Amino acid sequence: MEKILSINSGSSSLKFKLFAMPDEKVLAKGLFDRIGIDNSRVTIKYDGKKYDEQRELKDHNQAVHVLLSLFKELKLINDFNEITGVGHRVVAGGEYFDKSVIVDEDVMNKIDELAEYAPLHNPAELVGIRVFKELLPNAVSVAVFDTAYHQTMPKTNYMYSIPYEWYEKYHVRKYGAHGTSHRYVAHEAAKLLDKPFEDLKIITCHLGAGASICATMNGKSFDTSMGFTPLAGITMATRAGDIDASLVSFMMEKLQINSSEMIDILNHKAGLIGISGVSSDMRDVLAAADDNERAQLAVDIFVKNVVKYIGSYIAEMGGVDTIVFTAGIGENSTPIRKLVMERLAYLGITIDEEENSKHGSAGVISGEDSTIKVLRIPTNEELMIARDVQKLEKEVK
Amino acid sequence: MEKILSINSGSSSLKFKLFAMPDEKVLAKGLFDRIGIDNSRVTIKYDGKKYDEQRELKDHNQAVHVLLSLFKELKLINDFNEITGVGHRVVAGGEYFDKSVIVDEDVMNKIDELAEYAPLHNPAELVGIRVFKELLPNAVSVAVFDTAYHQTMPKTNYMYSIPYEWYEKYHVRKYGAHGTSHRYVAHEAAKLLDKPFEDLKIITCHLGAGASICATMNGKSFDTSMGFTPLAGITMATRAGDIDASLVSFMMEKLQINSSEMIDILNHKAGLIGISGVSSDMRDVLAAADDNERAQLAVDIFVKNVVKYIGSYIAEMGGVDTIVFTAGIGENSTPIRKLVMERLAYLGITIDEEENSKHGSAGVISGEDSTIKVLRIPTNEELMIARDVQKLEKEVK
Repeated sequence: MEKILSINSGSSSLKFKLFAMPDEKVLAKGLFDRIGIDNSRVTIKYDGKKYDEQRELKDHNQAVHVLLSLFKELKLINDFNEITGVGHRVVAGGEYFDKSVIVDEDVMNKIDELAEYAPLHNPAELVGIRVFKELLPNAVSVAVFDTAYHQTMPKTNYMYSIPYEWYEKYHVRKYGAHGTSHRYVAHEAAKLLDKPFEDLKIITCHLGAGASICATMNGKSFDTSMGFTPLAGITMATRAGDIDASLVSFMMEKLQINSSEMIDILNHKAGLIGISGVSSDMRDVLAAADDNERAQLAVDIFVKNVVKYIGSYIAEMGGVDTIVFTAGIGENSTPIRKLVMERLAYLGITIDEEENSKHGSAGVISGEDSTIKVLRIPTNEELMIARDVQKLEKEVK
Repeated sequence: MEKILSINSGSSSLKFKLFAMPDEKVLAKGLFDRIGIDNSRVTIKYDGKKYDEQRELKDHNQAVHVLLSLFKELKLINDFNEITGVGHRVVAGGEYFDKSVIVDEDVMNKIDELAEYAPLHNPAELVGIRVFKELLPNAVSVAVFDTAYHQTMPKTNYMYSIPYEWYEKYHVRKYGAHGTSHRYVAHEAAKLLDKPFEDLKIITCHLGAGASICATMNGKSFDTSMGFTPLAGITMATRAGDIDASLVSFMMEKLQINSSEMIDILNHKAGLIGISGVSSDMRDVLAAADDNERAQLAVDIFVKNVVKYIGSYIAEMGGVDTIVFTAGIGENSTPIRKLVMERLAYLGITIDEEENSKHGSAGVISGEDSTIKVLRIPTNEELMIARDVQKLEKEVK
């Protein structure tokens, strides 16, 4: 039995899942939080138990050291060589990467080069990759890109109507994000429907704090709502989604702020929190909606945007076979799914109220008589990463 | 017989149509071009004849003087009092105006106040209004706003997912544009289908140099693709339409330009000309497409965006009864209409190839067996303006 580690490094955090493969059993999962800040904390869940301690974590290097020694201490491994592969989530893969790859110097240079497209993510992820390569030199190191799945989009769908030179010189185009999640749930949908993945037109709604919608056709990502960056698309917890670019310049003038301050507001103070003023968490916004007009408005706008993109992608693909809800809101929010599906009644979509009242598990939430099957499927980016690592391990052996 | 004048003032131009009402007969139409610049020119078509001369036009005041004296000279009127009303197109009506109004001091102050939302248009339009009021003091003066028709949009559709204070303090929201055109062709569509306007779900595609798509439901504009300004929405001749706001900040940095220079590029060097590099005119772009990859890409992106918005609005309204093409491209481009309709075949839309080969007149371009009627309807904003003037004249009498 081989053990594969899925890693998601942030600027001050490191999340992981340790899998036993090929069983896909989760041996442990955890979070190293506030790395390089005071009150650093380690949380690991394993075998029905929980490790939760304050530990000094002055940088990612130390965090990985602590992680590996805890693996031994908690008897999750006996020897480092049991970990045969480590897969790293990387946010920006640009046009270089259309699938997961084994990390070598060239790959690391490219991840570094792409840092300007994901300044908060790629550098932190690269630090994680380097530390693991050093401490686990025998493990296969794999980079799994958020953008890779969307590299199959046709040019018609990824190009903006801007001066063409901006694409040629500065690679300005739609890249999308959440690719690993959309790829995972789209494949799971085909399994659940027992139909060949390549034959389906699938719309996957990844509705979490970050949220995006993806159209998969002929087994490939065909279009997606996030754009050059994850700011575009539908309303999110704190991100604005689609806006008129003129508004950016108008408000910069009014507030006397520069463009990076503006983008910061649009990423962190807009979306659900911006509209509602209540919370960036959909559960809080829903709870407040009865007595609070702005909270109700935030819910209505969120639902409208999901419906709007579903409609767009049905038209772009010329139809749809299944619509999938995933991620925090998508997996768990009975009311949001219901509101979206009610507005899709014109397509002949009906709701199985009992199945829609459930959350966390996979299921068909449309009624038996529904013209289009609507699914709830929990996403599992970490498992998708582990699967990619295992596949690439086999290729090099 | 009363005569009503429709006026469209630009910063250096003045277009007009003189109608005999209630017959809606065009007595004359023309253009005063390069006002305040060298080589000013006056063109008037009337009664099968054409007046076309270079004339000194140092400002709008002089242009209106020349216009009125030419009306007498060309025997279009005998006395100024025959002109009972003048209707003026005004681009930005903000939240003040949800319909056409008789212009008084308060209205002029509001048009002036709204200049920051349409800096190139409202001030020039206000000049035109003042000059006509002075020279034709007995005529009713009416303002017809591009945004007014869209004031019926529900808040869910006009609010952006931005900090709510930006709406409260700075009135940042979706206003839309081309309202007079969408209103006109939507009403004409109902007449052509011989159905009550209020009962129809209508999608009107105003595809000209500026282009926007509008969803009309229950006799009201429900949503539209232009936003806070006319920059947003689908690809246009030189405007970018929807883009990721992050791209604005990224490219400002790369090109070392400020936000107004950026907005200027997105308004004047993007869209069809930006992608194709060939032309901002769809006819040229189509002609070049066979041998030029970027021209073909521009056509494909334009068509995709129209299809995308039609799909959105079908979903938002929960269906559609008729789709209407209007304006330069919409009325005249057989290939663009065909490409859009082919992608809508999944809805059961078919094409009447012969009818679709025509242009300039109204007609049903979908096949007899089509599930949804698709129409070609020439827009006529000037006539809509004249009708509004006549209606308001009656109210004050």
